[in-house]
Amino acid sequence: MESVNKSDIEYIALGASLLGTGGGGDPLVGKLMALSAIEKYGGVELISIDELRENEKAATFCMVGAPTVGVEKIPNFESLENVYTEYEKYYGYKINAIVPSEIGGVNSMIPFVIAAMKGIPVVDADGMGRAFPEMQMDTFSIAGIPNTPSIFADEKGNSFVVTTEELKWTEKISRSLVDTLGGSLMNGVYLLDALELKRHAVPNTVSLARELGKVIKNFKNPIAHLVKDFGMHCLFTGKIIDVERKTVGGFVRGKASLLSLEDSESHGVIEFQNENLICLINEEVKCTTPDLITLVDNETGIPVTTENLRFGMGCSVIASKADPRWRTETGIKTVGPRYFGYDYDYVPVENLFKDEV
Amino acid sequence: MESVNKSDIEYIALGASLLGTGGGGDPLVGKLMALSAIEKYGGVELISIDELRENEKAATFCMVGAPTVGVEKIPNFESLENVYTEYEKYYGYKINAIVPSEIGGVNSMIPFVIAAMKGIPVVDADGMGRAFPEMQMDTFSIAGIPNTPSIFADEKGNSFVVTTEELKWTEKISRSLVDTLGGSLMNGVYLLDALELKRHAVPNTVSLARELGKVIKNFKNPIAHLVKDFGMHCLFTGKIIDVERKTVGGFVRGKASLLSLEDSESHGVIEFQNENLICLINEEVKCTTPDLITLVDNETGIPVTTENLRFGMGCSVIASKADPRWRTETGIKTVGPRYFGYDYDYVPVENLFKDEV
Repeated sequence: MESVNKSDIEYIALGASLLGTGGGGDPLVGKLMALSAIEKYGGVELISIDELRENEKAATFCMVGAPTVGVEKIPNFESLENVYTEYEKYYGYKINAIVPSEIGGVNSMIPFVIAAMKGIPVVDADGMGRAFPEMQMDTFSIAGIPNTPSIFADEKGNSFVVTTEELKWTEKISRSLVDTLGGSLMNGVYLLDALELKRHAVPNTVSLARELGKVIKNFKNPIAHLVKDFGMHCLFTGKIIDVERKTVGGFVRGKASLLSLEDSESHGVIEFQNENLICLINEEVKCTTPDLITLVDNETGIPVTTENLRFGMGCSVIASKADPRWRTETGIKTVGPRYFGYDYDYVPVENLFKDEV
Repeated sequence: MESVNKSDIEYIALGASLLGTGGGGDPLVGKLMALSAIEKYGGVELISIDELRENEKAATFCMVGAPTVGVEKIPNFESLENVYTEYEKYYGYKINAIVPSEIGGVNSMIPFVIAAMKGIPVVDADGMGRAFPEMQMDTFSIAGIPNTPSIFADEKGNSFVVTTEELKWTEKISRSLVDTLGGSLMNGVYLLDALELKRHAVPNTVSLARELGKVIKNFKNPIAHLVKDFGMHCLFTGKIIDVERKTVGGFVRGKASLLSLEDSESHGVIEFQNENLICLINEEVKCTTPDLITLVDNETGIPVTTENLRFGMGCSVIASKADPRWRTETGIKTVGPRYFGYDYDYVPVENLFKDEV
């Protein structure tokens, strides 16, 4: 057990925006909320999965909605208070800890906001090891744990308890609620004990995000350190020459094109649906979902989210291996390139791309 | 207290299709379900509001969705079982009786289906005294009783507990759920004691429907009896020369044009949104919502629902007074002609139309 203070929040938010693969909403918004919650309620304890006691259970809380909307409609304490109250009421259980649903963007920070408000710890793990756009895309769901009853609330006093017989319906219903109410909702779901977390959560991702944040913030050549110390790959270095982006059905879809800084014949393309899904270098696939693809600033190593991509930015494409749970048959069926409409089989990034030595 | 048997169900369904003002879904579907439920579980007791004991409470159950869809997707016992279970679970209350939400179409029958299944009585009253297309349009809502938490379920195991801070949001959310899941959902809401029912329900409408059904079924000239014995008005007698109808946003909208049988210069128009909303005779408004407008067969007096209107049908337009609760300022604001987009003030039907003596 260790305490998470305000500077830890800065590091975690920064690292999570790398693991967030361009999606999950602007981390700045979540970070400001987490800092404000810690200011008001005090620091949050981060516990390992093993530190969750036998009779204790953790729930996940996150924001649901298109990231571009999230930027306009800032998440707020009222909606978190409402979803927490409705969750405990419906489940009839007093939550012992929060486990992040994903370690990307705003949803890497929501757990700290709610943990501070409620004086309970955050578990050092998450349900993705990255960010993904749909609700059934987490390691709990693919392990067969139902993602319902799922609790939704907004800041005005609207709340919804959704129970579905098929995982994908929860996603469809939540998108339809978000569309109808306009923007975003807070969501609470799952009630997991230490054994379930040990089996099905991606472990130690909060502390990993903090380490990555420290590297990006404090090191002179962060990209080199990410490659050397964290087994990541730098697929491409260039500048953005084109960005297409539109919000369709609650998702931000689009692509970014890059031109090499050194070789004007060499170009890269990143395609995204909230998160970056695929990277092609000179028309060759070099990395696909579920492996992680993030655009970072060439100089500072600071990750750029899909909604912040702009013409002329100097960016590198950083890739890293997905958690082994995503590389299984079920994992690839759920979040592999074919699920998102690409006519490619998944091939691990380390087999597609060799670092130059 | 009296028992409702299968022939009572026939009469109630027929009378409710008159009070249903063309809407509320095909009564045949609900009737077949109610007959089948009574066959299987036995008769249902009909109690007056006064017979509900001091510590007892009644809930409403109905089908939500466009009537044309209801005809294709027949309501079923599973979805009623599911919504009832979820209702009792969320409210934490064992329901003592069912009070109909509306006395029109399929929703006049659903209470008998569920009452038979659960062995509890139906209260002789309803929340409209007719049928209306939106969820906040009942006498409980306009009295200030919140229409949430509202429970929804389908036959597959999907269920939703919807809590909203504003009445109209429940309607919007339920339409969006119906759209997403495709067709119709069962809904359970309200928990009302005898005092609340006495104040806010429209009393004795189930027995009124039964009386009306007997007149239509058994009398030789039913229209004359409706006018003479029930204070109704026969606004027009003719045949249908045109029907426009489309399903938009979960509603059936359209109009029917009629030509007089006796005077080829005289014509009538009925406009509807699920229910008949307005009647014009030779361009003059003769009756508007909330007063009741129903098209009935000239010979048999059998009511014709909006989805069954056809070119060439010989029809009369029957009108009657809405419950006084609908003729208040709040009532007219909620369901008057202006709410439905008409540029008319509400004028009571008895002031617009004088019966020829």
